[in-house]
Amino acid sequence: MKTCLDCIPCFFEQALRAGRIATDDDRLLKRLLDEIGSMLKEISLENTPPETGRLIYQMVSEITGNPDPFREVKHECTQKALSLYPSMKKVIEDADDKLLAAVRIAIAGNVIDFGPTASFDIDKTLKDVLDTDFAACDYSAFKDRLAQADRILYIGDNAGETVFDRLLIEQMNKPTVYVVRDKPVINDATHDDAVQAGIDRVATIVSSGTDAPGAILSTCAPEFKQMLEESKFTIAKGQGNFEALSNELYPIFFLLKAKCKILADDLNVTQGSIILKSMNI
Amino acid sequence: MKTCLDCIPCFFEQALRAGRIATDDDRLLKRLLDEIGSMLKEISLENTPPETGRLIYQMVSEITGNPDPFREVKHECTQKALSLYPSMKKVIEDADDKLLAAVRIAIAGNVIDFGPTASFDIDKTLKDVLDTDFAACDYSAFKDRLAQADRILYIGDNAGETVFDRLLIEQMNKPTVYVVRDKPVINDATHDDAVQAGIDRVATIVSSGTDAPGAILSTCAPEFKQMLEESKFTIAKGQGNFEALSNELYPIFFLLKAKCKILADDLNVTQGSIILKSMNI
Repeated sequence: MKTCLDCIPCFFEQALRAGRIATDDDRLLKRLLDEIGSMLKEISLENTPPETGRLIYQMVSEITGNPDPFREVKHECTQKALSLYPSMKKVIEDADDKLLAAVRIAIAGNVIDFGPTASFDIDKTLKDVLDTDFAACDYSAFKDRLAQADRILYIGDNAGETVFDRLLIEQMNKPTVYVVRDKPVINDATHDDAVQAGIDRVATIVSSGTDAPGAILSTCAPEFKQMLEESKFTIAKGQGNFEALSNELYPIFFLLKAKCKILADDLNVTQGSIILKSMNI
Repeated sequence: MKTCLDCIPCFFEQALRAGRIATDDDRLLKRLLDEIGSMLKEISLENTPPETGRLIYQMVSEITGNPDPFREVKHECTQKALSLYPSMKKVIEDADDKLLAAVRIAIAGNVIDFGPTASFDIDKTLKDVLDTDFAACDYSAFKDRLAQADRILYIGDNAGETVFDRLLIEQMNKPTVYVVRDKPVINDATHDDAVQAGIDRVATIVSSGTDAPGAILSTCAPEFKQMLEESKFTIAKGQGNFEALSNELYPIFFLLKAKCKILADDLNVTQGSIILKSMNI
């Protein structure tokens, strides 16, 4: 997916939001926006949004001098999600279709995001997502392919969401490699965040090698790219991974909430829809 | 009122919205955003928002080559408002407090704005505003001062809204000077727009001399500034005029809808509130 003109005001909003978490010095924040303004000329609309997001969040870290503004926020989100783990585990156990319930809960977790959205209510979202129809649903293919798969490549997205991913991984119950960002970017999960969520108990955690908020292959490590090439059953969570990978030719099941209007339009669904979409399957 | 950091993403949104009305050439639109990006450094947060807005909309005209992108939109809004004139006239005539009803209708008209808001529903707003309490209401002072006034200075805002201003002017029934922008900026009313709304039948139309979306005094003509200095009863419509004039020391009644969160916070009201606020009275 390419960056579109409407992404540009949104990047300034995101920079300001992230900047404010890193500093309360308005002069620094103005400088941050000025620098992003100067950088705009060099940003091509051919970029995927996470490629541009990467530059924006690098600038946030550079100007504010804080390499991980969301560190505390990520920790809190994971704690909050862990407190919901037992009740969500029970929802899955009580469901007629346990796998489907786990998929829905994993998508609900995707609402934990400080990128395109300013605020979220995870309790409300869990309830909504369990009751809402998918706008795009390839669940039957998902179930079939999962049954045939002997291992799973699971590309994670945000910290906190990781706990809900863990529930799905437990339900799928196959050897799983869980992929995290290499370095902090927004509230995306890194190795430490995944461990805090207990992912290490159910999967092998590996880094994609990227510091972008999405697995942009040109910024990923060769080891991850090889895994992706060889994988017969890949799940990619969230909007950033969708934007980064939707034009690649690998078979992938994307699980996400369409948080922004641009992505929703691209997928021909309404904003806020929950999506299980297969590509190249 | 000063520009705040949150205004910056909004300026990009506004530029894109206005740019898209002027052209559908994405390369030109990207160049427009790039140029505004480069310009950011020179924009001080000490500016009022309409001072910055003026620079933004000048850039829209310069890059797109269209000095009046909202010309057609303004014409349509005025036509639509004129079609509502008879029913609104009747609402006022049937009201217990005719002046208050006319004030409310004039504020409802302020929803017609292509600056900070993307879309509006004038029919719904009229209904809402007639039923909604003011968040800040100096109506009693407004009524008293109006009774004492022998003439009115009325600083207009948007085209279309002009028709609702006309209803208030008719209800107030005193010699009135109606102030318009000197040149087209967003959908703000110029002389021609005011004439289309029939303002010339109820008031003398004069230009403030500015091409900013708000009566920033440093950009206004000396004749207008003198009128403002001498005026004992001045009404200023809309957010742009509030932002431009709220720190000046003239007695003014501001009639507006608090469209953006920043202004609402500044006034300590909730976003969307309707406001009749006196200053220096």
